Amino acid sequence: MSNENLLKQVAFIKEIDQLKYIQRRTKLFNSDRHENDAEHSWHLAMMAIVLAEHSNTTIDLLKVLKMLLIHDIVEIDAGDTFIYDQTKSHTNTAAELLAAKRIFGMLPEAQAASLIAVWEEFEAGVTDEAKFARSMDRFEPLLQNISNKGGTWEEFNVPYEKVVEKKKIIGDGSTPLWKYAAALLDEAVEKGILKK
Amino acid sequence: MSNENLLKQVAFIKEIDQLKYIQRRTKLFNSDRHENDAEHSWHLAMMAIVLAEHSNTTIDLLKVLKMLLIHDIVEIDAGDTFIYDQTKSHTNTAAELLAAKRIFGMLPEAQAASLIAVWEEFEAGVTDEAKFARSMDRFEPLLQNISNKGGTWEEFNVPYEKVVEKKKIIGDGSTPLWKYAAALLDEAVEKGILKK
Repeated sequence: MSNENLLKQVAFIKEIDQLKYIQRRTKLFNSDRHENDAEHSWHLAMMAIVLAEHSNTTIDLLKVLKMLLIHDIVEIDAGDTFIYDQTKSHTNTAAELLAAKRIFGMLPEAQAASLIAVWEEFEAGVTDEAKFARSMDRFEPLLQNISNKGGTWEEFNVPYEKVVEKKKIIGDGSTPLWKYAAALLDEAVEKGILKK
Repeated sequence: MSNENLLKQVAFIKEIDQLKYIQRRTKLFNSDRHENDAEHSWHLAMMAIVLAEHSNTTIDLLKVLKMLLIHDIVEIDAGDTFIYDQTKSHTNTAAELLAAKRIFGMLPEAQAASLIAVWEEFEAGVTDEAKFARSMDRFEPLLQNISNKGGTWEEFNVPYEKVVEKKKIIGDGSTPLWKYAAALLDEAVEKGILKK
């Protein structure tokens, strides 16, 4: 039975290698190279480890790390949805749910159910862990765009108001982090790399 | 004080972006593209999450994830050392210790000390968590090389006996995983992608 589990888990481990090919719109810090989803997931997990003290509430860091490490795996099937896309919603789409069922469904049943639940909890954004995890997911590209003289804000003509609308949920996870991030956005406007 | 911490943490978050540029010798599954350290670290963390049930002992999964997420950060300064390198040892070198002190040293003092301790625990390989984390680190490239018709074994002419010598510590973390991995190595010999 344990060996049957192992075979399923190894098949899953091979399958998720594809996350390394999914390109995001945002680019690495001070760079022209697009970030891929696997690198992004690693970076968010590292951020959660070092920024946990700024969470608004006591959080289960292990849960947060699981959320961040798996949150984009559905994009292997469903593709990356750009946060400022006007036509396609970034929220839990039918395609993403199908992807979660197929990919996590490669694992032993109980494990699949458990990881799908973690992913759904992240997507819903209601629990303290989901709020903090989502604030990491919004904060990283903000730092990247600033390092890249506006990055995707500049490239896709995204105005300050729209950026604030998307980024302010950082505060649901961490008030001090949002305070800091909001100041960075104001500075970006002053520097002319974000348009008001 | 908290804001002073935050500034240090953000500087660290930007610094470790460089891990995405450190190339490993091994390549992605069924691919010619080299894996980078950030992708590798993400993949090992995912493996630990799905394979934890096969650990020889009850492990603190949060500790294991921290180990795997940070284990290669020293390579930003010290570079990747190839596991089958004949002249340079892969073990905790002076250059790696310096790197750990510089990079983790960007964080607030207590946090830096704590992450350096986690990294040293991984390197020492003595605790149950370090043993399991290290078995992940040895198992991923084994799977990659098999998918790539021998991969670095073929490329650098590494014989079966040498591979077994390096890989058998998988069993220190997980007996069933080593049993499975050893069978894969035997199969690789039969297929002619690993020379005895």
